[in-house]
Amino acid sequence: MLFMANITVNLPGDMDPAQKAALTEAEFARAMELVEAGNLRRIWRVVGERSNFSVWQADTLEELHAAIGSLPFHPFMQLKVTPLIDHPATEKWEREHGPWPAL
Amino acid sequence: MLFMANITVNLPGDMDPAQKAALTEAEFARAMELVEAGNLRRIWRVVGERSNFSVWQADTLEELHAAIGSLPFHPFMQLKVTPLIDHPATEKWEREHGPWPAL
Amino acid sequence: MLFMANITVNLPGDMDPAQKAALTEAEFARAMELVEAGNLRRIWRVVGERSNFSVWQADTLEELHAAIGSLPFHPFMQLKVTPLIDHPATEKWEREHGPWPAL
Amino acid sequence: MLFMANITVNLPGDMDPAQKAALTEAEFARAMELVEAGNLRRIWRVVGERSNFSVWQADTLEELHAAIGSLPFHPFMQLKVTPLIDHPATEKWEREHGPWPAL
Amino acid sequence: MLFMANITVNLPGDMDPAQKAALTEAEFARAMELVEAGNLRRIWRVVGERSNFSVWQADTLEELHAAIGSLPFHPFMQLKVTPLIDHPATEKWEREHGPWPAL
Amino acid sequence: MLFMANITVNLPGDMDPAQKAALTEAEFARAMELVEAGNLRRIWRVVGERSNFSVWQADTLEELHAAIGSLPFHPFMQLKVTPLIDHPATEKWEREHGPWPAL
Amino acid sequence: MLFMANITVNLPGDMDPAQKAALTEAEFARAMELVEAGNLRRIWRVVGERSNFSVWQADTLEELHAAIGSLPFHPFMQLKVTPLIDHPATEKWEREHGPWPAL
Amino acid sequence: MLFMANITVNLPGDMDPAQKAALTEAEFARAMELVEAGNLRRIWRVVGERSNFSVWQADTLEELHAAIGSLPFHPFMQLKVTPLIDHPATEKWEREHGPWPAL
Amino acid sequence: MLFMANITVNLPGDMDPAQKAALTEAEFARAMELVEAGNLRRIWRVVGERSNFSVWQADTLEELHAAIGSLPFHPFMQLKVTPLIDHPATEKWEREHGPWPAL
Amino acid sequence: MLFMANITVNLPGDMDPAQKAALTEAEFARAMELVEAGNLRRIWRVVGERSNFSVWQADTLEELHAAIGSLPFHPFMQLKVTPLIDHPATEKWEREHGPWPAL
Repeated sequence: MLFMANITVNLPGDMDPAQKAALTEAEFARAMELVEAGNLRRIWRVVGERSNFSVWQADTLEELHAAIGSLPFHPFMQLKVTPLIDHPATEKWEREHGPWPAL
Repeated sequence: MLFMANITVNLPGDMDPAQKAALTEAEFARAMELVEAGNLRRIWRVVGERSNFSVWQADTLEELHAAIGSLPFHPFMQLKVTPLIDHPATEKWEREHGPWPAL
Repeated sequence: MLFMANITVNLPGDMDPAQKAALTEAEFARAMELVEAGNLRRIWRVVGERSNFSVWQADTLEELHAAIGSLPFHPFMQLKVTPLIDHPATEKWEREHGPWPAL
Repeated sequence: MLFMANITVNLPGDMDPAQKAALTEAEFARAMELVEAGNLRRIWRVVGERSNFSVWQADTLEELHAAIGSLPFHPFMQLKVTPLIDHPATEKWEREHGPWPAL
Repeated sequence: MLFMANITVNLPGDMDPAQKAALTEAEFARAMELVEAGNLRRIWRVVGERSNFSVWQADTLEELHAAIGSLPFHPFMQLKVTPLIDHPATEKWEREHGPWPAL
Repeated sequence: MLFMANITVNLPGDMDPAQKAALTEAEFARAMELVEAGNLRRIWRVVGERSNFSVWQADTLEELHAAIGSLPFHPFMQLKVTPLIDHPATEKWEREHGPWPAL
Repeated sequence: MLFMANITVNLPGDMDPAQKAALTEAEFARAMELVEAGNLRRIWRVVGERSNFSVWQADTLEELHAAIGSLPFHPFMQLKVTPLIDHPATEKWEREHGPWPAL
Repeated sequence: MLFMANITVNLPGDMDPAQKAALTEAEFARAMELVEAGNLRRIWRVVGERSNFSVWQADTLEELHAAIGSLPFHPFMQLKVTPLIDHPATEKWEREHGPWPAL
Repeated sequence: MLFMANITVNLPGDMDPAQKAALTEAEFARAMELVEAGNLRRIWRVVGERSNFSVWQADTLEELHAAIGSLPFHPFMQLKVTPLIDHPATEKWEREHGPWPAL
Repeated sequence: MLFMANITVNLPGDMDPAQKAALTEAEFARAMELVEAGNLRRIWRVVGERSNFSVWQADTLEELHAAIGSLPFHPFMQLKVTPLIDHPATEKWEREHGPWPAL
């Protein structure tokens, strides 16, 4: 199953720089593990802002929750998770042309 | 350049079925052309709703506008287009592991 | 998998009574089929309003989408579908006391 | 009487871990008592978020208020409580098929 | 049980005057019956607007829903129903001074 | 003149308990004086939440402002004050049946 | 008593021009009567928009409601009426300097 | 030129009383200077709330910005400034009756 | 004086194509006149949407209102007009480097 | 490519004045560099508020993100970045009259 996450990270504007750096490093390390585990499938930053769109995959809703909740930034996140299915246009394309060009 | 579009299609609840069918067929035909042209890169339906998330690619903002505006449903759409860039986590992954697994 | 749907049905205030009655009868008939199919697990009306909360079950997101989209009121619905997982309190209860009292 | 509660728990992102653990333990202990008392009938977590949906039962509105207000997380909650009644589809089902399948 | 309803009536701006007059007369007649039945306990108009606050009483949520839903304006209403309980200040007053002055 | 106030009290989640208790006691004492003065005519708590609906009476807008502003919780309140007049249904009832049943 | 009204007039974009002209003429004629009656004390248009701010005076809330409700545009208005009192800065000025310069 | 300002002052609920008193005194002193300078033309308090409506006059937008920004409460304000012009009803009145009654 | 306008044009989705074409042609013709008159200084389309940002210049607020209100699309517009002044960064640049590069 | 940024700077109301002055000086110095680099093309302050509109130019979305993110106020900003393209009215003007008058 695929899910779209729209996440805004609200670190306090005056957070201690060393704490912020350590937290950020931990966030990235965990993100790498989630890519490897096949849960985090894509992530893009919204231009100019502190938010991002990411595509997640999980076999169960429990797996998805554990994956997102394991991110060190999670207590500072405002997030919206949306379950996705194939759009009929996707099906029509694949029926007629095979797989989509790689993204 | 990549963009995330979040689109809700508000066809009137009591639209004439034949008109709706014709418009829908034209919408799909145009969508196929936009996949072929490399503008529409992915599209997912939001479960249960009349809205979708789609990823668009364009060399210029003008090309993106022309592509989205050419959809027959466009006059009935409520839409939000968000420019995307690579997330640092994406860069870190690609530096260390090469390209992402195909989506 | 379980999902919470919060649905508001916006039939036009001045809809033709016969059309409204026929549509309502079709809605109920389809709802009964969805209970039988095991998709619609519970539905409550919000007191005083034209909206409801319902709990849905589906093995896949596609199955959920097809179930909700098959309701004759769907073109007139404003809806929000939220994927659910067990709350840790639920797990703690079941570990210590067995299944919840029937709802 | 049944009620739907949609609750988001906003613990400060940088709360002291020991205080957070103690508060969480007290929250769960109290939740178990409320299940036993028959007030908390079901609770699900919203996937990926710090919010949940829960179904509450109470003979009086005063009993419901006391139950929800007794949760140790209550001062940190943002909540919306909605009174529910049976949906006509529920009544139709029970008339024709007897009780719903267990949830 | 008491409930606060905040209702806005959205009749179309260009509704046929005769239809509007007939609907309004039916609305008032039904409102009188609901006062007599003890369901509609107070109703005030919001100054300058087409909305009102009203206090409702019902022994059950089902009775409340039937009462509000029986109003001829209901299909044109936007409404929010809030369950109420005594405020501790009310209890303190009644303990120390007896019943409140009539409202 | 009558007014509906919808007030949410936002005391910080981690306020010092002794300070909170003293402030709450002062709030209740002042509320009692406002009932006695005829300004605070009714107050109900919204079930499960930290907000309330209250009906206020004042001969002048200045008197109303002084009354509400004198509450010790006022600096922590988010509030909306709505001026009320009799609803035509109220007038129709009183013309035909005399005063409303006591609330 | 003084009140601030913030009114947006939503005439349908494709209203019949003759009907629109007649309604507008009636609106202005009624507005003139309300100035003469001392109810409408000032009115300004919001630059570029179809909305306005106006200051109203009335001895009672009932008088205010009747005045605003008598405007022919009223069924097409979206409005917010706010009761006003003198600001302490106003009182300080008048105590020290006499009446404000004419507005 | 005239402008309507709608200002809410959000002093922290637990601000030090002496600091609050000093800031308030400075705010009032500056407000008096702005009345004298002809910038602050009227100010009313919204009943029961910590917000106000005020009418400002300035020959230039720069003058308006400097005036509002010079208020000691400005860093704690949430504000919306709306440029105003005469409403056609104002012009019609003045053409037919001369200046408005003093406000 | 400069102003930023953010305008969304809501033509009905099923407007008669000939009427739409005529209205659009009139809109463009009038826009050209407003550029020539020095009122419309820049206009950009928001990518993918039916809205735009435009910079307007006017010696008076009345001139601005007349200019915007003269656009044939005006009855179908949802718009927000914001008065602008030079930012201190603009002034610093001009003091140190002379005029900005042409936009 | 051009972008419109609408930025509100939320420095804490009680920030230490020296820290605020240093941060502001750094902000302006960086802004000057971004003008020189051709990224920041125009910036205006919204009258009376702590927000601004600015026009940005960048060859790539990455360049835009780096430019905006390099501002020392960025951690305190609430911002919305909108990609812009030429409006057809702009094209029509340039085709018929050559370049726009300088802004």
